[in-house]
Amino acid sequence: MICIAHIVAMKVGIADTTFARFDMGAAAIDELKKNASMRIERHTVPGIKDLPVAAKKLIEERKCDIVMALGMPGATPIDKTCAHEASLGLIQAQLMTNTHIIEVFVHEDEAKDDKMLAELAGRRTREHTQNVIKLLLKPKLLEKDAGMGKRQGSEDAGPLRL
Amino acid sequence: MICIAHIVAMKVGIADTTFARFDMGAAAIDELKKNASMRIERHTVPGIKDLPVAAKKLIEERKCDIVMALGMPGATPIDKTCAHEASLGLIQAQLMTNTHIIEVFVHEDEAKDDKMLAELAGRRTREHTQNVIKLLLKPKLLEKDAGMGKRQGSEDAGPLRL
Amino acid sequence: MICIAHIVAMKVGIADTTFARFDMGAAAIDELKKNASMRIERHTVPGIKDLPVAAKKLIEERKCDIVMALGMPGATPIDKTCAHEASLGLIQAQLMTNTHIIEVFVHEDEAKDDKMLAELAGRRTREHTQNVIKLLLKPKLLEKDAGMGKRQGSEDAGPLRL
Amino acid sequence: MICIAHIVAMKVGIADTTFARFDMGAAAIDELKKNASMRIERHTVPGIKDLPVAAKKLIEERKCDIVMALGMPGATPIDKTCAHEASLGLIQAQLMTNTHIIEVFVHEDEAKDDKMLAELAGRRTREHTQNVIKLLLKPKLLEKDAGMGKRQGSEDAGPLRL
Amino acid sequence: MICIAHIVAMKVGIADTTFARFDMGAAAIDELKKNASMRIERHTVPGIKDLPVAAKKLIEERKCDIVMALGMPGATPIDKTCAHEASLGLIQAQLMTNTHIIEVFVHEDEAKDDKMLAELAGRRTREHTQNVIKLLLKPKLLEKDAGMGKRQGSEDAGPLRL
Repeated sequence: MICIAHIVAMKVGIADTTFARFDMGAAAIDELKKNASMRIERHTVPGIKDLPVAAKKLIEERKCDIVMALGMPGATPIDKTCAHEASLGLIQAQLMTNTHIIEVFVHEDEAKDDKMLAELAGRRTREHTQNVIKLLLKPKLLEKDAGMGKRQGSEDAGPLRL
Repeated sequence: MICIAHIVAMKVGIADTTFARFDMGAAAIDELKKNASMRIERHTVPGIKDLPVAAKKLIEERKCDIVMALGMPGATPIDKTCAHEASLGLIQAQLMTNTHIIEVFVHEDEAKDDKMLAELAGRRTREHTQNVIKLLLKPKLLEKDAGMGKRQGSEDAGPLRL
Repeated sequence: MICIAHIVAMKVGIADTTFARFDMGAAAIDELKKNASMRIERHTVPGIKDLPVAAKKLIEERKCDIVMALGMPGATPIDKTCAHEASLGLIQAQLMTNTHIIEVFVHEDEAKDDKMLAELAGRRTREHTQNVIKLLLKPKLLEKDAGMGKRQGSEDAGPLRL
Repeated sequence: MICIAHIVAMKVGIADTTFARFDMGAAAIDELKKNASMRIERHTVPGIKDLPVAAKKLIEERKCDIVMALGMPGATPIDKTCAHEASLGLIQAQLMTNTHIIEVFVHEDEAKDDKMLAELAGRRTREHTQNVIKLLLKPKLLEKDAGMGKRQGSEDAGPLRL
Repeated sequence: MICIAHIVAMKVGIADTTFARFDMGAAAIDELKKNASMRIERHTVPGIKDLPVAAKKLIEERKCDIVMALGMPGATPIDKTCAHEASLGLIQAQLMTNTHIIEVFVHEDEAKDDKMLAELAGRRTREHTQNVIKLLLKPKLLEKDAGMGKRQGSEDAGPLRL
């Protein structure tokens, strides 16, 4: 009984952007609802550089136990710099809160066309949602996969072939 | 009544520079006044690397609920490095205050001539001012636009075409 | 007696990833068990950018005296950027806790084939595990090796030849 | 009377280096003395990477209201990296103290010969000293110049020509 | 008498690495002993990325008044990135402690052969040790050299020739 009460109490924050060209937030929420009984808080911001403080606010003001930071950086050099800045801020936000923030970024130049990019964004978001559930509820499953060359969105690299 | 009192109480900080070649601060203030009843605090500094502490002072000393950090980085490599440093500082300032700072940077090499650059600077500033209003007063409008490929200053990319 | 009690009380944190293609965590734990009587805490996360907060949680929540942060960055430019971001976060985590976190990263392009990469990952992990033991229990052994051109995983460069 | 007392009480910190090839500190102090009744504290350090903590100590230990960080980065790639690191540290120091630190860097490759470089260093230092005075005593003058394309050391770019 | 007591009480921290191919720590300690009556604390770590927390621990746990961070980054791109990360961490450690940490890095590609590299490492370490003594005991000597183009390890650039 205590265990179930614990699961119900867990809260996942979803930080996403209007810049993204795919609704990664909706995909994450759908995957969460299908697989676990979490409470969900969502905070949508304009772009990826707004995600670090959005995630920190979800943790500190809206009491999330973990946050997913979802974004789609563009393909130009300035976009890559923005993604780098956002990533550094997300790491810093985690260190300030002792809370995991799972960054799910899909770069616009990772796929050949819009259709494949949407599929990649959906798959990566959903597979990282599974990681979020494991981090919160089943950390031993991650330990079992240590060193197994897991990838999110594309095929696993797998362990080194000896 | 409580709602209106709340709107009146909101305060927006404007941090801008003398380095910029367009008065982005004036555009932001004009757009704010046309669309909402916010109080406004302005702090003009020499260059974009002065913006992070300017924004933090607007938040902590002048009690702003959100800040717009407005700047126009030049076109040379050293200017790009300055913009990168300023962006990292702005993210850090947000994390230290749990307050959004909306960065509005217009790079001098983003347009072909002075006239187009001024138009871009005006449009981007005004469209980000709309984001600021939404973040403060109507966050559900941002959520509705999640994944819609919104851009500020140029045409929206729109959602991926499937 | 006090000395032995002290050794028994020491706790080493192992932070590793499911992204890695070699179980560096298992290698570190094996090497620790063969060489010292440490208590071990393990926290496996998806990727290297999750390591900084994982290490900080091991230190602050699970009371580790030192942490090993184990990862295998990929070979593409974005992977190199991720490794850079993770490294900066690991340094920051150390400064926030006054605790050493020994980063053991093996880049996928450091070896010609899977077999050599696995051997490198194993050797580097084990040799850094020896450093961890020295940092905790025998710091004078490190001082004796100061300036000796030590390398982990490959042959020592040795001191400059005069 | 209160106003004058206030002006007298203001203290400006000068952080400069022995690495620089021009005495920017002396230029700043001369310009300050000619234009305002400020108290001055000086802290000279070896190189630009020593400036962030020097500035923070001037603020926190010697009670400066603002600091000028003066340096002359060299022309090689490693020098550029040092300047980048120093700039990030200066921004961080400002955020930790809520105090402006005006960075005045003159890169050795900004001028064709020693004479022009010295003139540039002198002019930029003095023009930024004017900014320091405005930030402390006449912030409305900076606001009036918002978006006017001001430059320090070289000719103003001016506002965009429409 | 008070003055002498003060000098005796000063403590210098030496943070160095086993990765370096020259015993910079020994050179610094020798130079310190020849020139001043400081107490010395040494903490040797594996590599330069371990130096920031080593320096902070020397300051906070072993009460050093200043620290020298000594390292020899390798010549490859990844080594340069490591040096950059270490430098950023050292600046951050200084800001967190309001204490100078003098970074003395000698890059492996700064000299043509082992002999010249060793000489450079020795000279730079000793000349920076002189800076450390000045920072602690004779800050006015540094101020006298402001803008004089001082270099450590190689010939001084000297002031600009007008």
